Amino acid sequence: MSEVQVINNGVNVEALLGAREALTEAPAAAQFVWRAESEWQNGTHTRSTINQFFGLGEMQDRGKQFEIDTDHPEVFAAEDKGATPVEMVLVGLAGCLTGGIASVAQNRGIQLHSVKATLEAPMDLAGILGIDPEVRNGFKAITVRYQIDADATEEEIAALVAQSQKRSAVFDIITNPTNVNVEVNK
Amino acid sequence: MSEVQVINNGVNVEALLGAREALTEAPAAAQFVWRAESEWQNGTHTRSTINQFFGLGEMQDRGKQFEIDTDHPEVFAAEDKGATPVEMVLVGLAGCLTGGIASVAQNRGIQLHSVKATLEAPMDLAGILGIDPEVRNGFKAITVRYQIDADATEEEIAALVAQSQKRSAVFDIITNPTNVNVEVNK
Repeated sequence: MSEVQVINNGVNVEALLGAREALTEAPAAAQFVWRAESEWQNGTHTRSTINQFFGLGEMQDRGKQFEIDTDHPEVFAAEDKGATPVEMVLVGLAGCLTGGIASVAQNRGIQLHSVKATLEAPMDLAGILGIDPEVRNGFKAITVRYQIDADATEEEIAALVAQSQKRSAVFDIITNPTNVNVEVNK
Repeated sequence: MSEVQVINNGVNVEALLGAREALTEAPAAAQFVWRAESEWQNGTHTRSTINQFFGLGEMQDRGKQFEIDTDHPEVFAAEDKGATPVEMVLVGLAGCLTGGIASVAQNRGIQLHSVKATLEAPMDLAGILGIDPEVRNGFKAITVRYQIDADATEEEIAALVAQSQKRSAVFDIITNPTNVNVEVNK
């Protein structure tokens, strides 16, 4: 009896490759608009809801919504009702890079067993507190440390991570500047 | 009988001003390190956990953790177990700007009644799908539209939002480049 190993990381690569082909033919369908709605609760506690987004030429509705709270921790005299906004950026980065690793692994026929990461981002609060105008408000840098168990060599695993970085939307948003326009009561 | 209006946005401004004074005297305590741990679940579904961070000279433990899932929606042939990673960045931005508005309003004696925002971020999927190397992976831009009801003039409300932007960590992270180092199995 011969055995054929089926690689399954839970990613439908055929659908993704099909989407790439379809969107190459129809570039208008590739124009997405991601959305979030947010509502102040109290203090630094805000609740955001995620559901609809525009894509494939029309508004997409998930038929459900994700509610995500952000707040400050108790050491800032806040109520700690959710992760801080800066931690939420780390969650986005972890999710984007990790989903990318699974997708690239599937495409390359590499079975993943576990993909864990620890993210650390130093920040000098002298920025946001207005103590020192020379200190930036955001992170000084971010370090992502992956521990990956997969049926692959160390070189193949490193290549997975590198390809995921290369195609990661959140990695791009953090490492390159993006314009943010804020409007009020218009 | 005279009436004194008590402004209460739920922000402990005295504590924040005290922190600013204390951290001005002790800059080492202002050095924070924010953390996230993430673990791949299946497909593009990743679960991140948020609890500890380093600050005020020592590791801070919330005594609880926030679990936050990210995934891709069903139109990408995924299981839609959480918001997408790019939507999570919008959640972070909304939370940071809105918490800042509440803090600045408290400091300026302005009573807020409601602070709602809609965020929209166009993205051309030709980037992440590798269709066109000239297209960036991330957002083209982000627009944040606030609807704010407060006991203040339109000018005072606009000034609140401007000051929040000026001190926002996530606004800085998105609008300016931040270095991201990714390590594997070290």
